[in-house]
Amino acid sequence: MAKTKPKYHIFVCTSSRLTGENKGYCVQQQGKDMVAAFVEEMQDRDLDSEMMITNTGCLGLCSMGPIVMIYPQQIWYGKVTVDDVEEIMDALEEEEVVERLLI
Amino acid sequence: MAKTKPKYHIFVCTSSRLTGENKGYCVQQQGKDMVAAFVEEMQDRDLDSEMMITNTGCLGLCSMGPIVMIYPQQIWYGKVTVDDVEEIMDALEEEEVVERLLI
Repeated sequence: MAKTKPKYHIFVCTSSRLTGENKGYCVQQQGKDMVAAFVEEMQDRDLDSEMMITNTGCLGLCSMGPIVMIYPQQIWYGKVTVDDVEEIMDALEEEEVVERLLI
Repeated sequence: MAKTKPKYHIFVCTSSRLTGENKGYCVQQQGKDMVAAFVEEMQDRDLDSEMMITNTGCLGLCSMGPIVMIYPQQIWYGKVTVDDVEEIMDALEEEEVVERLLI
């Protein structure tokens, strides 16, 4: 049986390296705090059943980092901070995007 | 200007943890070798311009791991091995899926 796919799959770059090192640009720039903030907002909004939040390795877009990608909508945000998370989640629920963060 | 999005964004679970530890299920099960195999196939097929390959943290689907997800197509594969990578890439180029690996 096919697994139910999330309506929104949020990928947050935390520069998680294959070697296990954590020293890239995004992880220095609140990447980990952002994952926690997304999880908190997801739970507050009771979206657990239709959302997944996953940390990623380097996306090679460091000059635009920290990066957040939302699939399958193909929404890519750059220079995201923890303070932007609430606005990103509001936009998702309204089927809109945060224009100022788009890359 | 909007960044050009890849036609295929392949996410490979390597259990990359926020703590920097590498000790989850998928990383033990060839996760790292799989990333290397996808990169090699991508380069061999000259698909660099339309494909991205990214390692991820744990997806919480360990019993079905190692996991490979392809977005925005929303193709999810489970119990993937390095030997499956060529077939997965063949299917992508033919706009098909590898039925036996779908989850």
